[in-house]
Amino acid sequence: MELLTYSMEKRGSEPVYLYIYECIKNDILSGKILPGEKLPSKRVLAAHLGVAIITIENAYAQLITEGYIQSREKRGYYVSEDMEVLASPEKKAEDDILDKAAVSGKNADIKYDFSVNSIKSDSFPFDTWSRIMRKTMLDHEAGFMEAPDGRGVPKLREAIADYLYKSKGISVSASRIIVGPGTEYLHHLLIQLVGRSCFVAVENPGYKKISRIYETNGVRVLHIPVDEKGMTIDRLKDSNVRLVHLSPSHHFPTGSVMPVHRRGRLLKWAQEQGAYIIEDDYDSEFRFEGRPITTLYSMDHSNVIYMNTFTKTLAPSIRIAYMILPEKLFSKYMDKLSFYSGTVSSFEQYTLAEFIAGGYYERHIRRVRNRYKKCRQEMLTALSESGVLEFITVTEDKAGLQLAISVKPEYEKQAVNLDKRLLEKGIKIVPVTSYCYSEGEKYKNSYLLYYSDMDRDRMKEAFSYIKGLL
Amino acid sequence: MELLTYSMEKRGSEPVYLYIYECIKNDILSGKILPGEKLPSKRVLAAHLGVAIITIENAYAQLITEGYIQSREKRGYYVSEDMEVLASPEKKAEDDILDKAAVSGKNADIKYDFSVNSIKSDSFPFDTWSRIMRKTMLDHEAGFMEAPDGRGVPKLREAIADYLYKSKGISVSASRIIVGPGTEYLHHLLIQLVGRSCFVAVENPGYKKISRIYETNGVRVLHIPVDEKGMTIDRLKDSNVRLVHLSPSHHFPTGSVMPVHRRGRLLKWAQEQGAYIIEDDYDSEFRFEGRPITTLYSMDHSNVIYMNTFTKTLAPSIRIAYMILPEKLFSKYMDKLSFYSGTVSSFEQYTLAEFIAGGYYERHIRRVRNRYKKCRQEMLTALSESGVLEFITVTEDKAGLQLAISVKPEYEKQAVNLDKRLLEKGIKIVPVTSYCYSEGEKYKNSYLLYYSDMDRDRMKEAFSYIKGLL
Repeated sequence: MELLTYSMEKRGSEPVYLYIYECIKNDILSGKILPGEKLPSKRVLAAHLGVAIITIENAYAQLITEGYIQSREKRGYYVSEDMEVLASPEKKAEDDILDKAAVSGKNADIKYDFSVNSIKSDSFPFDTWSRIMRKTMLDHEAGFMEAPDGRGVPKLREAIADYLYKSKGISVSASRIIVGPGTEYLHHLLIQLVGRSCFVAVENPGYKKISRIYETNGVRVLHIPVDEKGMTIDRLKDSNVRLVHLSPSHHFPTGSVMPVHRRGRLLKWAQEQGAYIIEDDYDSEFRFEGRPITTLYSMDHSNVIYMNTFTKTLAPSIRIAYMILPEKLFSKYMDKLSFYSGTVSSFEQYTLAEFIAGGYYERHIRRVRNRYKKCRQEMLTALSESGVLEFITVTEDKAGLQLAISVKPEYEKQAVNLDKRLLEKGIKIVPVTSYCYSEGEKYKNSYLLYYSDMDRDRMKEAFSYIKGLL
Repeated sequence: MELLTYSMEKRGSEPVYLYIYECIKNDILSGKILPGEKLPSKRVLAAHLGVAIITIENAYAQLITEGYIQSREKRGYYVSEDMEVLASPEKKAEDDILDKAAVSGKNADIKYDFSVNSIKSDSFPFDTWSRIMRKTMLDHEAGFMEAPDGRGVPKLREAIADYLYKSKGISVSASRIIVGPGTEYLHHLLIQLVGRSCFVAVENPGYKKISRIYETNGVRVLHIPVDEKGMTIDRLKDSNVRLVHLSPSHHFPTGSVMPVHRRGRLLKWAQEQGAYIIEDDYDSEFRFEGRPITTLYSMDHSNVIYMNTFTKTLAPSIRIAYMILPEKLFSKYMDKLSFYSGTVSSFEQYTLAEFIAGGYYERHIRRVRNRYKKCRQEMLTALSESGVLEFITVTEDKAGLQLAISVKPEYEKQAVNLDKRLLEKGIKIVPVTSYCYSEGEKYKNSYLLYYSDMDRDRMKEAFSYIKGLL
């Protein structure tokens, strides 16, 4: 066959292997490459497209996984003969959006992308981090040869405890803090502590990844509706729920904050039920107005597991998250799970400890928060100047990495399939319904606009398109 | 009460918090501190003993977990009134030995410690690693802001694939390599892939930690006897086993190597049963004689999961392990588990990739292997010169971080409780029975001697004691 030729310029910001996978998949679906046809070898295609062999390998692996192509031993890669069994590509694409919260550039020619936060690239303080790393290397040579405690190195846990006290008023012993390589791992530990015979409750709408983690590990999940005061409590009663995941200080994606009386009711329920509440505080650092909100954990040390991560505030490549276990769960942890080895490189733990203790983390958070605040202001101004606010309302702008908007009820009819119609014009926004498990009707005209590095005029252009469609 | 005073000099090599925990526990058990008595505050005791507050916190946390003391809110720490409910400290100590493979210095006054590998402290090439880290920091600034692939960064997986090919003749696509923060995490992934309805088979004797990981995650475990050819196969037949964990190239702790005909039978069983074999190759780098042994994975790509770690060969603080998934499991992984985020800092992954690709890893392995070889030789000479070989046989010295010895059958009667009697003299050796789940009878006179930095004369002293007791 002719060699497959794809223009690398068109790929936008998605990984190269995904781009190549998409191109080949489209060629198969459109019949440009026929069933049974042999694909070029990985080596040949890599050289032809000027990419690494592993890139082609990854693209082929994904195509194999989804059944588009097959590998025949010692003969190479062939397009599947039996094209009936293919998974629907639409379905798959949708899943991707749901899981990754936001995926950019999958559709060709996205000109205005509001589906992913794109303003983080130069915010990490490399120089300071490098300097601390070099110092850490010299200071902790001995520590390097010791296996880290399963809970994390004491120095980091102390630094986190101090930070929590100073910045959120949380008073906690460093010994009850458990460090892990991301919140996903911490959820794995919680499953091992709480067991699989009960249900976990998650917010609907919410991050679907959380429920996927539990389901993948054999725990049944209840989706609990969220209203303007956060998670509702009625459905928790008379349930077999022993673990609840929520973000009471800033619900994603609606932004609702749970008021104190509902918090009280929730905690009372947890005490009576003997249940634990996972307070996921991941974006609490990005609150732009008013004081930080008091944590649930501060209200109840016995039934609340406080969880947070440095991945969102520092850099996606830093895999350090932590949780505080209530005393009873902590005893159980020491008893059942303290045999596990550490999961985060000590070296990076010492570096982060120094970064926090030296005050650099707080400074970084302040800087990032100001930057987001400015982006938010730019976006609000662009919305206002574009005239689109005649048709939509900004429903949430107090915190987080995105705005939430809703089409006004009087323009509902024109708003059908707004996101899909915008996509045809190269504008990508995220429907809130993509975070709903069911009963998404009330969010059908709600969308998220992630902050971006677009300048105000370009945003105005995009918002004028929205206006034009309504 | 009088302040607790413990001499920090006596603690040996165990962590400070464990030492303090032991001291307080002993004082409680001996009645020196009475039930109901109040302990000093963490702050006061820390200042008094000249240690960090978190150290006392950790010691107290351990005492609380085991029920020796209680925390009363806003009043402090008290020795438990109800001393009947205490867990047996003997039982606990034994568990520790089993889980951690070897624990040093728990008993006071250990003068000759053969229970833990103690020769690793200056073997890590800090300068090279630091240099590569600095370079990585400059080269991968952009990569730093990207979330790593759940499988690990491609560059590291490529470096591992190249290394496996060059050093072990394993030919594998980098895309099928999954990187994780330790083998424990990789076992968690396997459980999610294979499910909980079947059994996992582990070696008996063997590392008890492996079965603990599976049991903690709700998977039932079968303990399969090991003979001089490695794991036996009869008990696997007619079982519901779908996952088998073993080290065919160097069984721990007996050192047996599985010969090719048994490998063939095992692989045939796995194919018929649709089972997967986890080939744990963790100490294959420490083979002192002959060529590296061909891996099971090289014999069968469809049913063998190859697993290895850098933690053992580089430094305990580096949490990077990997596995190769057979094609079918890999598809399942991409389908079910590729939604997981990366678990190892990209920065450390890039550093390790460069360390391997630059040939430093191979050089390091050679250097460490030679060092162990020398230590082994010193130990063999000391055994020989001490005259103890009249009474014992060295049963395993080809590979790994320890020798295995057995008391000769004719001295069996004198060998009863040899390890306990040696402990009274301050000599610590590890009974092979501590790695047995059951049927440990045949190992009752077998012990492990871990390599150490002890000089030859001191080793000779220790071995003379052994001789004296037989």
